[in-house]
Amino acid sequence: METDQNQPAGLRVIPLGGVGEIGLNMMVYEYGDDIIVADCGLMFPEPHMLGIDIVIPDITYLRERADRVRGIFLTHGHEDHIGALPYVLPELPVPIFGTALTLGFVREKLKEFDLDSSTDLSVVKPRESVTVGPFKVEFIRVSHSIVDGCALAIRTPEGVVIHTGDFKIDQTPVDGELTDLASFARYGSEGVLALFSDSTNVERQGYTLSERLVGEAFDEIFPRCPGRIIVAAFSSNIHRVQQAVESAARCGRKVLLNGRSMIANVAIARQLGYLRIPDDVLIDLREMPRLPPEQVCMITTGSQGEPMSALTRIAMDDHKQIKLEKGDTVILSSRFIPGNEKTISDLINHLYRRGAEVFHEKVSEVHVSGHASREELKLMINLVRPKFFVPVHGEYRHLVKHSRLAQRVGVPEERCLVVENGAVIRFADGAAEVAGSVANGRVFIDGKGIGDVGAVVLKDRKHLSEDGMVVVIISINPQTGEILYGPDIVSRGFVFEDESQEYLDETKKIVLDLLAGMSPEVLKDWNEVKQEVRRILRRFFNKTIERRPVILPLIIEM
Amino acid sequence: METDQNQPAGLRVIPLGGVGEIGLNMMVYEYGDDIIVADCGLMFPEPHMLGIDIVIPDITYLRERADRVRGIFLTHGHEDHIGALPYVLPELPVPIFGTALTLGFVREKLKEFDLDSSTDLSVVKPRESVTVGPFKVEFIRVSHSIVDGCALAIRTPEGVVIHTGDFKIDQTPVDGELTDLASFARYGSEGVLALFSDSTNVERQGYTLSERLVGEAFDEIFPRCPGRIIVAAFSSNIHRVQQAVESAARCGRKVLLNGRSMIANVAIARQLGYLRIPDDVLIDLREMPRLPPEQVCMITTGSQGEPMSALTRIAMDDHKQIKLEKGDTVILSSRFIPGNEKTISDLINHLYRRGAEVFHEKVSEVHVSGHASREELKLMINLVRPKFFVPVHGEYRHLVKHSRLAQRVGVPEERCLVVENGAVIRFADGAAEVAGSVANGRVFIDGKGIGDVGAVVLKDRKHLSEDGMVVVIISINPQTGEILYGPDIVSRGFVFEDESQEYLDETKKIVLDLLAGMSPEVLKDWNEVKQEVRRILRRFFNKTIERRPVILPLIIEM
Repeated sequence: METDQNQPAGLRVIPLGGVGEIGLNMMVYEYGDDIIVADCGLMFPEPHMLGIDIVIPDITYLRERADRVRGIFLTHGHEDHIGALPYVLPELPVPIFGTALTLGFVREKLKEFDLDSSTDLSVVKPRESVTVGPFKVEFIRVSHSIVDGCALAIRTPEGVVIHTGDFKIDQTPVDGELTDLASFARYGSEGVLALFSDSTNVERQGYTLSERLVGEAFDEIFPRCPGRIIVAAFSSNIHRVQQAVESAARCGRKVLLNGRSMIANVAIARQLGYLRIPDDVLIDLREMPRLPPEQVCMITTGSQGEPMSALTRIAMDDHKQIKLEKGDTVILSSRFIPGNEKTISDLINHLYRRGAEVFHEKVSEVHVSGHASREELKLMINLVRPKFFVPVHGEYRHLVKHSRLAQRVGVPEERCLVVENGAVIRFADGAAEVAGSVANGRVFIDGKGIGDVGAVVLKDRKHLSEDGMVVVIISINPQTGEILYGPDIVSRGFVFEDESQEYLDETKKIVLDLLAGMSPEVLKDWNEVKQEVRRILRRFFNKTIERRPVILPLIIEM
Repeated sequence: METDQNQPAGLRVIPLGGVGEIGLNMMVYEYGDDIIVADCGLMFPEPHMLGIDIVIPDITYLRERADRVRGIFLTHGHEDHIGALPYVLPELPVPIFGTALTLGFVREKLKEFDLDSSTDLSVVKPRESVTVGPFKVEFIRVSHSIVDGCALAIRTPEGVVIHTGDFKIDQTPVDGELTDLASFARYGSEGVLALFSDSTNVERQGYTLSERLVGEAFDEIFPRCPGRIIVAAFSSNIHRVQQAVESAARCGRKVLLNGRSMIANVAIARQLGYLRIPDDVLIDLREMPRLPPEQVCMITTGSQGEPMSALTRIAMDDHKQIKLEKGDTVILSSRFIPGNEKTISDLINHLYRRGAEVFHEKVSEVHVSGHASREELKLMINLVRPKFFVPVHGEYRHLVKHSRLAQRVGVPEERCLVVENGAVIRFADGAAEVAGSVANGRVFIDGKGIGDVGAVVLKDRKHLSEDGMVVVIISINPQTGEILYGPDIVSRGFVFEDESQEYLDETKKIVLDLLAGMSPEVLKDWNEVKQEVRRILRRFFNKTIERRPVILPLIIEM
């Protein structure tokens, strides 16, 4: 790890998350004694992170330099860019800069944690700049699957760094607000030191389809629906909601919003003027039954088949107020997020069982991506004409391919840097190098516990999940080694106890025989006894039923 | 459930698996006192089936009529059609009919269970028939992602049923053996009672691409690879292996086979004449290091990123003999099986980290499906012109869509039957109806245990996986209610014990205070004590750290 005393001059850029993974976005920009951070996101747990609620970046590096952090700049309001704020702010109570809708979502989030009144939130408009220490940061509008997203043009003494955030280049955006290519071109003409660009869709040829196409798909589908329409979408995708509302109104339907975040985010967006819904279009759950089905459109969360979501409960015929019928249509206007394919597939099957018709991105144009495809990524590089190129926001293979794409449009190979989280990219005197790496990683949040669940606990949970647990209770006189109690055997998740009494009795006998064969000396060494019990039962279970439960011998002293 | 005494005449067709799911294929054909079964497959566990190894169909219906089962007819050698045989045969030791390669794979499987010598395996050639009781079964060749697959034309006193098995219509099959459309047409002209057809790809427009295209993709890619080539494929896809071998030989490479099932299946296929590999093309692991990388092609299993597979270990740089380098190419010549997207994605990222180039079905034509797309499904219905249509081999939505597709080509809606497992489809006097349902379901195999792990144990494992387990040990004098020992607290997978001693001490105190507040009478009621301990700890854990471990109070008598 670099020591700060010897810190050479130059701009240091350090990803603490979001590089080599999708999620957890957090980029440190450091010059001298000043640090700013771009984004502060979370990641949803992967399947092996048993019992974990969310994952946030390890901010040890910033914690050790807390007095030097001047502010956090947010590109947009998605969870993988703002979700870690409530956990980071208590340690780094710095000003936060972002656009109006981004900060609207942030404020809502901070309220849950009682941090909203103590946090300094500054709204910045696109093309406005904020100066913090040696950094001058201009917000540049970009299109994305959320409104009010921006790239950051970060001017430093070493030069300008363009930090794209998540972007696409939509030529027919729903609100008419285009990706501000002119500003990117302006910086490109002036000279850009480095471009840090969104690698998510680098494997997709061509251009990403426009958001407006989804509205057109709605206009084609909605009028043909005989019964009710349910549109499932991400509540942060304001333009998607806008289009669904407009298409619904155009065919005489009222709109019901469902899902806590849908209702909250729509309220924020309407209040800030980003979403226009006439009051008479909205209905609530009580009014819905009074309308004929063909006059109803519900916009809801739950597109990923999340177990407790309203849509899943509707699909399982488990929702008190909403019962699906033949003639009803469900539109999953969202992405099949990798990892969720099975739950979404199950959701779709259940919806068909209820008699509904289902549209989704694999069979219909009811969703478009929010990330640039290859041609847009090339366009960005060609406009910005950076000296150095660093692909971010992608898994390793996306970074490699984005680096190759940059080379294809003319950035020399030696100036394309594929790095991992924690890498210190140092720019000085027109050169760039990876100058070591710093502490980085993932912190697990389980319930109220932050970071206490790590590899050891996860390993135990995994082991428990596979074949359960067997507890062996014995009491041994520590002086004589006489067995005073047990062995008693209790298990969970191992075998079906109601039918396995014989087997468990056999298990008891195995342990009894083992103990009977031990000398009083050995029996006084409880660690030795536990080890032997574990060993013999492991062998017994493996041999007889090929299962490997967690074996927990408990020796108690009376 | 129908009682057999009152069994009306007619043909009864009962799916015991494979309908409403992909996997577990098993179809019962029953006429009077005779039963034949089409296929006997397994299913790999879904994520929530913790610790389960495989899933097989519940054969209660057949077990109760074991003396009437005359034979099992196999359509092809995939696990979801033959995998349950070793578990079913001990209870139903009946003759098995299938093509040469299918039975070759079956024999290999039965060897592992010591069932090969006791099982009656009869090889049937395409266009040959087998008569069993009132059934005359003709095998009709079809193309699939395995060689020697057949549909079954089952002639019964009520009429002919065409059971397609898994199929596609490949116009340029690698071995020149076409799907035998003429035979389907022959039956269509004669008159077919019902068609049971493969719904897997009903959501795909057009036609499925030919297997030969993959060979062409290999010929395009292989010569451009500077280093070694690794092709990952399913070992049962003999034509894929054939093409890989030929493309390798054409550019001067030797072939190394890797993976137990790859080596075994290739041996079976070569021995039966289905796969032609000149001996001098094959090398083994010891010879490989002596060849320059550009002369090496390895064909291996592990395409799904399975944790212990050779390919995964190579990707993690954990394989003793094979180290990937820049210039090496890995081709995942296989499907991204739903549910495995994450492990495959991780595999690809690790391969890129090793410096390899990776081709897979999403970016290259290195895999084609083995199942018919919509136009081929329509063609099958039009050739066969069945009176009744029953979609099978698909999840519920596939069945619904396949039923609609049949209606589109002219089968009346009332003659399209979408059923679930266990449904008794009764054909009599030219009519068809669903006449009730029979016992059916999934049996879990965990280690050597068959069926003992059910909902209760799985629920426990799930609970254990989320927040682990807390064991509370207390000893109470059953006469006086005096507390002789404890409470002692031990946990696994709950909190990080090394750092949580204080918290666990606090937990102990909670229980101590609870017990101190109980009268001796209450303390003698151990069930009551356990309930109270569980209750108070549940509340404590939830309130303090929002975790819900399994709580196991153990009260022991000394």
